[in-house]
Amino acid sequence: MPLTVADVDRDLARRQAGYGRGGRMKIEKDSARFLSGVRNGLTMGSPVTLSIENRDHVNWESAMSPEPGPAVEMQTKPRPGHGDLAGMLKYSTGDARNILERASARETAARVAAGAVARCLLLQIGVAVRSRVMSVGSASDERSPGLTEADFARADEDAMRCLDAEVSAAMMREIDEAAEQGDTLGGTFEVVVFGAPPGLGSHAQADRRLDAALCAALTSIPGVKGAEVGDGFSLGRARGSRAHDEIFYDERLLLHRKTNHAGGIEAGMSNGEAIVLRAAMKPIPTLGKPLATVDLADMSAARAFKERADVCAVPAASVVGEAVVALAVASAAQEKFGGDSLIEMRRNVDGYLEQISAWWRSRGDA
Amino acid sequence: MPLTVADVDRDLARRQAGYGRGGRMKIEKDSARFLSGVRNGLTMGSPVTLSIENRDHVNWESAMSPEPGPAVEMQTKPRPGHGDLAGMLKYSTGDARNILERASARETAARVAAGAVARCLLLQIGVAVRSRVMSVGSASDERSPGLTEADFARADEDAMRCLDAEVSAAMMREIDEAAEQGDTLGGTFEVVVFGAPPGLGSHAQADRRLDAALCAALTSIPGVKGAEVGDGFSLGRARGSRAHDEIFYDERLLLHRKTNHAGGIEAGMSNGEAIVLRAAMKPIPTLGKPLATVDLADMSAARAFKERADVCAVPAASVVGEAVVALAVASAAQEKFGGDSLIEMRRNVDGYLEQISAWWRSRGDA
Amino acid sequence: MPLTVADVDRDLARRQAGYGRGGRMKIEKDSARFLSGVRNGLTMGSPVTLSIENRDHVNWESAMSPEPGPAVEMQTKPRPGHGDLAGMLKYSTGDARNILERASARETAARVAAGAVARCLLLQIGVAVRSRVMSVGSASDERSPGLTEADFARADEDAMRCLDAEVSAAMMREIDEAAEQGDTLGGTFEVVVFGAPPGLGSHAQADRRLDAALCAALTSIPGVKGAEVGDGFSLGRARGSRAHDEIFYDERLLLHRKTNHAGGIEAGMSNGEAIVLRAAMKPIPTLGKPLATVDLADMSAARAFKERADVCAVPAASVVGEAVVALAVASAAQEKFGGDSLIEMRRNVDGYLEQISAWWRSRGDA
Amino acid sequence: MPLTVADVDRDLARRQAGYGRGGRMKIEKDSARFLSGVRNGLTMGSPVTLSIENRDHVNWESAMSPEPGPAVEMQTKPRPGHGDLAGMLKYSTGDARNILERASARETAARVAAGAVARCLLLQIGVAVRSRVMSVGSASDERSPGLTEADFARADEDAMRCLDAEVSAAMMREIDEAAEQGDTLGGTFEVVVFGAPPGLGSHAQADRRLDAALCAALTSIPGVKGAEVGDGFSLGRARGSRAHDEIFYDERLLLHRKTNHAGGIEAGMSNGEAIVLRAAMKPIPTLGKPLATVDLADMSAARAFKERADVCAVPAASVVGEAVVALAVASAAQEKFGGDSLIEMRRNVDGYLEQISAWWRSRGDA
Repeated sequence: MPLTVADVDRDLARRQAGYGRGGRMKIEKDSARFLSGVRNGLTMGSPVTLSIENRDHVNWESAMSPEPGPAVEMQTKPRPGHGDLAGMLKYSTGDARNILERASARETAARVAAGAVARCLLLQIGVAVRSRVMSVGSASDERSPGLTEADFARADEDAMRCLDAEVSAAMMREIDEAAEQGDTLGGTFEVVVFGAPPGLGSHAQADRRLDAALCAALTSIPGVKGAEVGDGFSLGRARGSRAHDEIFYDERLLLHRKTNHAGGIEAGMSNGEAIVLRAAMKPIPTLGKPLATVDLADMSAARAFKERADVCAVPAASVVGEAVVALAVASAAQEKFGGDSLIEMRRNVDGYLEQISAWWRSRGDA
Repeated sequence: MPLTVADVDRDLARRQAGYGRGGRMKIEKDSARFLSGVRNGLTMGSPVTLSIENRDHVNWESAMSPEPGPAVEMQTKPRPGHGDLAGMLKYSTGDARNILERASARETAARVAAGAVARCLLLQIGVAVRSRVMSVGSASDERSPGLTEADFARADEDAMRCLDAEVSAAMMREIDEAAEQGDTLGGTFEVVVFGAPPGLGSHAQADRRLDAALCAALTSIPGVKGAEVGDGFSLGRARGSRAHDEIFYDERLLLHRKTNHAGGIEAGMSNGEAIVLRAAMKPIPTLGKPLATVDLADMSAARAFKERADVCAVPAASVVGEAVVALAVASAAQEKFGGDSLIEMRRNVDGYLEQISAWWRSRGDA
Repeated sequence: MPLTVADVDRDLARRQAGYGRGGRMKIEKDSARFLSGVRNGLTMGSPVTLSIENRDHVNWESAMSPEPGPAVEMQTKPRPGHGDLAGMLKYSTGDARNILERASARETAARVAAGAVARCLLLQIGVAVRSRVMSVGSASDERSPGLTEADFARADEDAMRCLDAEVSAAMMREIDEAAEQGDTLGGTFEVVVFGAPPGLGSHAQADRRLDAALCAALTSIPGVKGAEVGDGFSLGRARGSRAHDEIFYDERLLLHRKTNHAGGIEAGMSNGEAIVLRAAMKPIPTLGKPLATVDLADMSAARAFKERADVCAVPAASVVGEAVVALAVASAAQEKFGGDSLIEMRRNVDGYLEQISAWWRSRGDA
Repeated sequence: MPLTVADVDRDLARRQAGYGRGGRMKIEKDSARFLSGVRNGLTMGSPVTLSIENRDHVNWESAMSPEPGPAVEMQTKPRPGHGDLAGMLKYSTGDARNILERASARETAARVAAGAVARCLLLQIGVAVRSRVMSVGSASDERSPGLTEADFARADEDAMRCLDAEVSAAMMREIDEAAEQGDTLGGTFEVVVFGAPPGLGSHAQADRRLDAALCAALTSIPGVKGAEVGDGFSLGRARGSRAHDEIFYDERLLLHRKTNHAGGIEAGMSNGEAIVLRAAMKPIPTLGKPLATVDLADMSAARAFKERADVCAVPAASVVGEAVVALAVASAAQEKFGGDSLIEMRRNVDGYLEQISAWWRSRGDA
């Protein structure tokens, strides 16, 4: 499969863009390096290893050195909303830094890089993964049905990755206000998979359901507290007669739907429509005005320590969302279609699509 | 571990209760039988096999016989909202029945039975899993903070598994109305885990995050289209200063929180507070007034075929939710604490809890 | 995929045949029943559940009842060579019966049944799995190169599953002698996979190597203490110039080898030649003259208790060997070729084989 | 857990030692660098990433560049005994180099590094993994029973990692002879685990058996064609009365065995005795006098191309054997004992060992 550093760096840059990011984004200009698996612009079947250097690392070489050394200053005031406290208890350490560096959303750069590889594979079989920011704080762009792949492509041109310019401006105003008050914001984003063939995932086992895999992927992103498929939570309020997507056939469109409440997945399987996913991200927990906590050095009341942080990272999270969704869909495609070379996988996909539409056509002719 | 049929049958009966169920519930009165793994009321370490007889099965012996036989009537009109169509394409069959029997929510009886075993294990280490129905259609009981384990215990006494009698009555009225109109309803439910020790799951790898595992468990339930942890989607609208749970310490409560917006999970790890999860279920897709579809026998427009079905299955889904959550939490506890006998696992859990609280106390004394 | 009870029962009967089996084989005449996954003689994509009734079970209903009841007689004298002692320690039980029933080779009936399903799938893509007994005690039939699939088919006609009538007779004599002396015997068997396409497994990751998966499968059979691929241990004594299989090409045979020291696997991948595996089985540990042990009731010296047992189970083990190998090869084929229906999997396999040979032919023409 | 680069480099150096290695060993003097997971000499619970630079890499920067570039010389003559041909077919490449670099035993350096981490964990709970070379070509040191951990420690002092000086000298003579003739040698090695507690692995499921996991680990090493536990293949020739390890008890040794034919594993579980494993390695397939093959560029008969290679790598393989065994045993220990910190895991292990011996003693007193 063709794969170059540029394919990966493009997504790394998209993750780093976005209004509301803190100073860190200025330190990092992420770029990947292939350590294995790619030769002369093609993958080889062996594991692809990607390295993204942490440009900030030079400032931490002493404090984070792997080798035994003099005692370092310990971070003993766990920040609410972070994994600091739970991690310190679990791993039995008095220093929150041993937890927080790994729990940092910095880790999502690696997922974006891996997701870029999955994206390249999916493009080879006609599948594209896109995203947009739907809301930040109270500024919200709810419209959804009818958005095409081309619409989503415009998200990259907006500083909030929002498809409505007015809402985008409102989002930025809210971010400015929150920043002034030492506060932070969360929001929601949407990830859509275009071109997925029907039959990814399976109804036959709980652990093979595509919707469960995709919701797990999204909620594994730091800060994401909820995920839904298609109309999601609003389906809990709908009547059955309006909640499902009727099935139609004609010679041009073959089998198709006119609505997509199900978000492209029925009974844990893709049904051929666009796969629509949404996720909610909580506000960044590191605040300008730190929250109350306990100093674990002596159990006294304290204020959480401060790390450099963003005011709002929803645009970045939407790019991470694309990555984890691409990985999950590529994995489902690999399971269904197999294949150890592009020629083999593509032939398997084409054979399946041909089989399905030949079946319809032969019957429709009858 | 002590385990009897009664432990399992209790949950099977809870799944079958609930207003709005169709005729099927009258056929089934599920009861489990242990085929392996349990002797003299104790598990033995070998796999526990449970069998739940399908009392309806006698009516299907001919049509569903495993042995080759005469041609059976084929079900060729896939129902929108079910896996019928996607499954027929994926597995290359012209008969929707080959898909729909396995995709049936009947399958959740097995998960409830397995979940009952997990529940027994969790009770041995002080962890309880409860649920309630929050909304059906437009009838909604949103209150949440401050509900205790005792409050949740009352859900079993209500036909809707709702904790507010008035809302429960409103839910039943909506179900009656929908039934009259040949329509169906969905809703939302909440699953809460009380007593989970801090440190289940891990921030260190995406595939070890407890929140992702729990959201996958919930969205693997047929009909569930979304899942959230703690305040979930509403956290997308909150300011950071109000979205996180500050940390406090005193001699009696030790380390604790006064709020639980995070729903007991930070950075993919349980933090010692109650784990709060919510899920949304779409309306049952089999309607009294069937939806438009295509007859795959000749690709003509048709109406979906009808199977006997419920009007609303949210109360049952909440019991299934308990089961899948219990399985995921038991699995995380097994991973953290190990142990091949109850005495060993309990000693490991107690040792860990003692280690944590001794640490705090020793420092608080200083 | 076509699948009937007869397909499974055939292998269950082959497992039960063989000279040297004890009284148990007379109790059991195993027959499988499909509880799910098969309809009208075809699999449906849903999990295939097979049930094999234990005809001996009626005699154990009281002693092995899952429900709490009166105290049962405990088995406190663990038998050397069985899992009795290790299992009692691990699972903290004073009754070896809680361990030994599950550790019994009776469990391999289930693997043979599952293996029969895998065998049916493999036959659909032209792959056959065969076995023979090579040695029992000191009676040994070492010849190997040049045995064809037809030769192996004759193993079923011999009471020892041995391909040499004289050696077979010698094996039976040794069994008779051992039986007279209250002793038992082990031996070695060979499993061969004919028709496997090149490229199953992968060199790219240790946990995807086909040889490792196959050796794990064989050594997971109770009593098997070693496994080798191709010339195996004897390759440790060979010179490199005689240990490898040179590569040749002609128009009729295309790419081929004249030797098969590697046993069809190079660098963890099938290479297109027959896959040849051997395994060694230790003698049955339950002896007519019981071994020394300790009575765990009071730690006094004792003799191991006796269960009804075989003198030699190598013929049965060779059938179990076929089953576990079939499962591992089917799994590798599923991973490489994907496919959710027979038509899809076969098309994928055929496309791959065509791709390979077209490549050779086009170059050979040049 | 304490962990330093020196802990890893020690094993890397042991892998590189040994008589019979080719020129490559002079290029490499492997040293690991921690990229993550270790701070101030202690692991943190996050993934430990190790990097071992390939000093030879500078010579390959152009030919193996990940970026698209001018055509490189292709390697079209697959070497018998290597994965060249199977890999070219599987991954659809005309250049064997795309396969052979990953299939190279160079990859085992990474496993040795990872194994060194597992070894450090095991030492913390009193478990040591050792190895020795048993035979090379026809020179063989078969003695086994009675070897202590101290005996094994001496293997590092011998150029062949052999415990008998005369046999070691004979091995080196055979290597010299083979080298002169452009030939190569294989052999056998033994890996022994001292101090493993009883109850690792499980009889309850085929995929949890410790012997199967260990044989898979060993046969996943490049060139290893067979693995056995305890007396292994020779048990196929033994009588049951001599093949099993009787059980004894006294106040000093508690429960123990006087023999160890089973190699420390019964029914897939460790039984408290030393775990004894053996593996056979085939001769290196890259010969001074290359074997016959086919040039895939035009399907003409050819001689395999030559890469720089060793004459005999059995001493190195024995060190790799230690690593993969350490990883598998550490994984089984983690599964049984859980624990996220050293203090927690050790407490769990100690509690279990105490529980077992208290049980015996209380009964022995009675």
